[in-house]
Amino acid sequence: MSNAPTLQSFIGGRWIGQHGAQLLRSAVNGQPLFRTHEEALDFAEALDFGRSRGIPALMALDFQQRAARLKALALYLNERKEQLYAISHHSGATRADSWIDIEGGTGTLFAYAGVGARELPSGNIVHEGPAMPLGKQNLFAGSHILVPRGGLAVHINAFNFPIWGMLEKFAPTFLAGMPCIIKPASATSYLTEATVRLMHESGLLPEGSLQLIIGGTGDLLDRLQGQDVVTFTGSADTAAKLRVNANLVRNSIPFNAEADSLNCAILAPEVTPDDTEFDLFVKEVAREMTVKAGQKCTAIRRAIVPAKHIDAVAERLRERLAKVVVGDPSVEGVKMGALASHAQQADVGERLQALLAGSELLFGAQDGFAPRGEGVNEGAFFAPTLLRARDPHAEGGAHDIEAFGPVSTLMAYDDLDEAIALAARGKGSLVASLVTKDAAVAARAVPVMAALHGRVHILDREAAAESTGHGSPLPVLKHGGPGRAGGGEELGGVRAVKHYLQRTAIQGSPSMLAAVTREHVRGAQVIETEVHPFRRYFDELQIGESLLTHRRTVTEADIVNFGCLSGDHFYMHFDELAATESQFGKRIAHGYFVLSAAAGLFVSPAPGPVLANYGLDTLRFINPVGIGDTIQARLTCKRKIDQGKKSPKGEPQGVVAWDVEVSNQLGELVASYDILTLVLKRPQAQ
Amino acid sequence: MSNAPTLQSFIGGRWIGQHGAQLLRSAVNGQPLFRTHEEALDFAEALDFGRSRGIPALMALDFQQRAARLKALALYLNERKEQLYAISHHSGATRADSWIDIEGGTGTLFAYAGVGARELPSGNIVHEGPAMPLGKQNLFAGSHILVPRGGLAVHINAFNFPIWGMLEKFAPTFLAGMPCIIKPASATSYLTEATVRLMHESGLLPEGSLQLIIGGTGDLLDRLQGQDVVTFTGSADTAAKLRVNANLVRNSIPFNAEADSLNCAILAPEVTPDDTEFDLFVKEVAREMTVKAGQKCTAIRRAIVPAKHIDAVAERLRERLAKVVVGDPSVEGVKMGALASHAQQADVGERLQALLAGSELLFGAQDGFAPRGEGVNEGAFFAPTLLRARDPHAEGGAHDIEAFGPVSTLMAYDDLDEAIALAARGKGSLVASLVTKDAAVAARAVPVMAALHGRVHILDREAAAESTGHGSPLPVLKHGGPGRAGGGEELGGVRAVKHYLQRTAIQGSPSMLAAVTREHVRGAQVIETEVHPFRRYFDELQIGESLLTHRRTVTEADIVNFGCLSGDHFYMHFDELAATESQFGKRIAHGYFVLSAAAGLFVSPAPGPVLANYGLDTLRFINPVGIGDTIQARLTCKRKIDQGKKSPKGEPQGVVAWDVEVSNQLGELVASYDILTLVLKRPQAQ
Repeated sequence: MSNAPTLQSFIGGRWIGQHGAQLLRSAVNGQPLFRTHEEALDFAEALDFGRSRGIPALMALDFQQRAARLKALALYLNERKEQLYAISHHSGATRADSWIDIEGGTGTLFAYAGVGARELPSGNIVHEGPAMPLGKQNLFAGSHILVPRGGLAVHINAFNFPIWGMLEKFAPTFLAGMPCIIKPASATSYLTEATVRLMHESGLLPEGSLQLIIGGTGDLLDRLQGQDVVTFTGSADTAAKLRVNANLVRNSIPFNAEADSLNCAILAPEVTPDDTEFDLFVKEVAREMTVKAGQKCTAIRRAIVPAKHIDAVAERLRERLAKVVVGDPSVEGVKMGALASHAQQADVGERLQALLAGSELLFGAQDGFAPRGEGVNEGAFFAPTLLRARDPHAEGGAHDIEAFGPVSTLMAYDDLDEAIALAARGKGSLVASLVTKDAAVAARAVPVMAALHGRVHILDREAAAESTGHGSPLPVLKHGGPGRAGGGEELGGVRAVKHYLQRTAIQGSPSMLAAVTREHVRGAQVIETEVHPFRRYFDELQIGESLLTHRRTVTEADIVNFGCLSGDHFYMHFDELAATESQFGKRIAHGYFVLSAAAGLFVSPAPGPVLANYGLDTLRFINPVGIGDTIQARLTCKRKIDQGKKSPKGEPQGVVAWDVEVSNQLGELVASYDILTLVLKRPQAQ
Repeated sequence: MSNAPTLQSFIGGRWIGQHGAQLLRSAVNGQPLFRTHEEALDFAEALDFGRSRGIPALMALDFQQRAARLKALALYLNERKEQLYAISHHSGATRADSWIDIEGGTGTLFAYAGVGARELPSGNIVHEGPAMPLGKQNLFAGSHILVPRGGLAVHINAFNFPIWGMLEKFAPTFLAGMPCIIKPASATSYLTEATVRLMHESGLLPEGSLQLIIGGTGDLLDRLQGQDVVTFTGSADTAAKLRVNANLVRNSIPFNAEADSLNCAILAPEVTPDDTEFDLFVKEVAREMTVKAGQKCTAIRRAIVPAKHIDAVAERLRERLAKVVVGDPSVEGVKMGALASHAQQADVGERLQALLAGSELLFGAQDGFAPRGEGVNEGAFFAPTLLRARDPHAEGGAHDIEAFGPVSTLMAYDDLDEAIALAARGKGSLVASLVTKDAAVAARAVPVMAALHGRVHILDREAAAESTGHGSPLPVLKHGGPGRAGGGEELGGVRAVKHYLQRTAIQGSPSMLAAVTREHVRGAQVIETEVHPFRRYFDELQIGESLLTHRRTVTEADIVNFGCLSGDHFYMHFDELAATESQFGKRIAHGYFVLSAAAGLFVSPAPGPVLANYGLDTLRFINPVGIGDTIQARLTCKRKIDQGKKSPKGEPQGVVAWDVEVSNQLGELVASYDILTLVLKRPQAQ
């Protein structure tokens, strides 16, 4: 036992831990694996290091650059993933279970690299516009910005996904410019430690941006400040304890909780045993019971099925569970591994006893349970166990007791309303599945279910071909649920990054708002030079550079020609009688003609830095353009994003959005929109 | 004293309270005004009434209909506002102070009526799209919806704005379909009671949608469930106590706090006593000290000024404060009224003593303070009091102690970084002002300040003409700040409504997602009929009704003609040599030609229900269209919003958004966008 290596914390820029403390054993065969370290950690030092080194180092990069680092980190880890698989099975995980943790983790890094590159700006301010005039003359306007909070994030994670759990929190935090201090659950902290070691070895992490605690958090929470945040994944009880920490409360420190919950799946009333959906339901329930030996905060704990089909569901589930080979994940053919520890094994056993008070055992340890492999008697195995609630409406049963293992309870219902009501008895969960073939059932049930379940997964034969399954949180979708599930929000694409930023309202003259947001705001001073802004390279262009075009009088011939060319002979342009009776009282020019003519006014025809107009946003036709009206356009550089990308020909380029205002001879706005362009950077001298 | 009428609670659909309890006195002259009631309230009944009556009644309306109710309520209250002004002065408020409370309140109702009408859909589901394919064949997709939580909101309010404070929380809650239980601070609860009485008399409130508690909340918080929410405005200490209520914590019940904070204003280093901005700063500080006698959670408590100018600032502030006439607000010429109660008077006095330990008194009661009016010696008046911090960096002074009255402290700084650091010493505030004439100063300071102040107000001579001031939260801008300010978010336009909705991720086949979101999702089944969808009335159109157009081959002549007509002779369309060298390797058609030709393909020329295409969103040119390519468009009814509006000719109409996909002969998407139209409802038979 003295051979178990000591895991180390990474605090204050160094690895700490020479002397072993708590022994961590293999979940599979009880062999000693690692020890936590005995050395106490100085959390004042950790925080000071994060504040004095981590924040400046992260803020020396911008959103786009941090996104690029995440991508490089994901690649680095992916190339070394077998080092992680090599120790992951000790936790009782099969290769498939480990894939969720390891490649699910790096996949989340990749996903957030993409979110950052696509949805975040250059610089370190997100402008959540548009700016709004707050006075009639637009001398005073308001908008919102999101900025890095200038604090640290403490992430307290659960034992079941030691790598994914860290990375899914690290990725948005890192993008947001916030250093992390990670505290994994000790039982599987060796996987987090190994991953953090690789991340540091990559050389891609700015100093102080990621610290690791092996062991307890001591006085860490008591030392946090208002700009910091805490996230927690684990049991609802622990969440409740941490949430009321006096220091967190006193300083309104955000505490985001994602707690285990009593997730459910509903088999819709119209599905019969002959339907594909019936088998999809059975398969999904069995899968959620056995993947990761049921140790997923999203696993299906309650399977809610029509009373008339409950026996058929039970029968098919028993058949399926009987085929699940349990044992040492390194043994060929094993489909389900062990729980993470003996402590978990004991805990699940206790909860199962409590559940049995109100339910019937349909499948369990007595049904041929014999884990395969050497030394498995010392492992933390648990038999897949299927129950049926005697009274699905009873208190204190499967709606309230969570066995965090391969245990699920069937519940019978009579109609859809009862099914939804039973689902709600979980008092808030991370996810619910509805297996149905009828879109009308989904349309009725899902909006009601959505109030209580953070994610609703609708499964039918069409979706089944590509469904990622009930239990899988995805980087682009919100993870977290109300009530018992903790009330937090994680993931969900760019939403997660925004959770780590501070949203602040800003007010001032449009010029001041433009200076702060680094975006042109209408009403702000513009910069007019002799050079056409389309002839300026990306790096030369300034926000606010603007061109007021020459004018063009719109004639009847324009309307006729545009109709001929487009094929659009709408009465408003061509039928004098009907147009006269319309709201405008006359024939008007096509909106798309106005758009096209504006482009004709501001285009700069020869080859230049502007490569392409690839899109257009929020076009509004504000006033009609009649025959004889004279239009003029103003084109202003609104926003620049440097994604570090290159054109198809390999030349560095950036994205430039332009504000376009088209006015008539009375100075009235007739059309308003943004156009999106790709603009080359100035070629470097050879 | 027995003549003071008893205020009543409105619980369970009836007014409760016959027997007087706590006496509420006039803040101006100490005369008895009202009593709270002695009868205990049954909060189980209140919750049951809200759940069983309020929720169904609110959900019988949709977002658009509730928005219309808010507008009608605002009009109703505005017509009766003098009834409220008639009692508001008892609270010590001047007419101008009461305007903030009364018309600021109804203005917030109007603003949210507008937000609802413009930004929320018909129905009771907000689709926070776009839906995203989660598999390569788009058989499984994901998106997010926001739905009513199915719970109640408890709003606990402060004494300073008994009407605005209620309405600014009621409006977004009502839009979100959530019944409210309002608990105003007793001292000024007679104003809330009078307003709630008017609201009920209007007949516009669905049964159970608004209940009122006069007196304490008893066991109300202990009875809430996970779908409920609590909001709190008041002191940070009380917020901290309520936040850790065991029932709230156990059920993850959202608790949104907006706490008094040590807000500041910074006079920028470049502003000299000769600048307009110098006077703007002085005026703003004086105004924030005296409006509502400084009893605003947003008031400027710390005025941070360049050391070299601190004497000049002090001098001008003294001059200004000396002119402030304090007294009974009903006396002609009075500019500042009383604090809300003797308790407040005593509290502010105590805090002032604490502040004086570290500061010098520049202006105060000794400077000619003599409130005007009869009986004012029994009132709760307090002299405008200006301090100067001896050491602006000292602990325990104006960065930590809030005197919730007309008290402000000047602090000297040497450079901008020191000013920002001093501002941050408040540990989080609702708002900070920066008075500057230099956009570069704003660009540098505001992003740093934004991490700690929930709103940053930039004031210069341009903005001054229309500025709504440091202290005014606006419906369109977020109100709430980090740290000491409670960490909550209120207002901010539609954001506030979303805080009262549950965000839920949904996954399933595109057809299922379309059924749930009531929006067309690409990949979902479409409905193709013989009738052109543009010939269908608003009420007849179904989501998913779709037209696949005939095709059109794009020719060189099209490009030539489009260039001639638009004036757009960009080389990519006209210069064979340059275009050949470009990323596309050939001349391509104008993007706006593709857009125009698509309109030509799907237009239905004769007069019909579609009145106008008033806009276009998220246009992306995905693949180039070359000479000889053949394009085809698919137009699908995506979203319908019934705002209950009429066309300029008085015909009922709705908004319809259409999804447009333009493809080439290979089936590749070349352009993708939404178009927005106004569509008539079918005329009723005469």
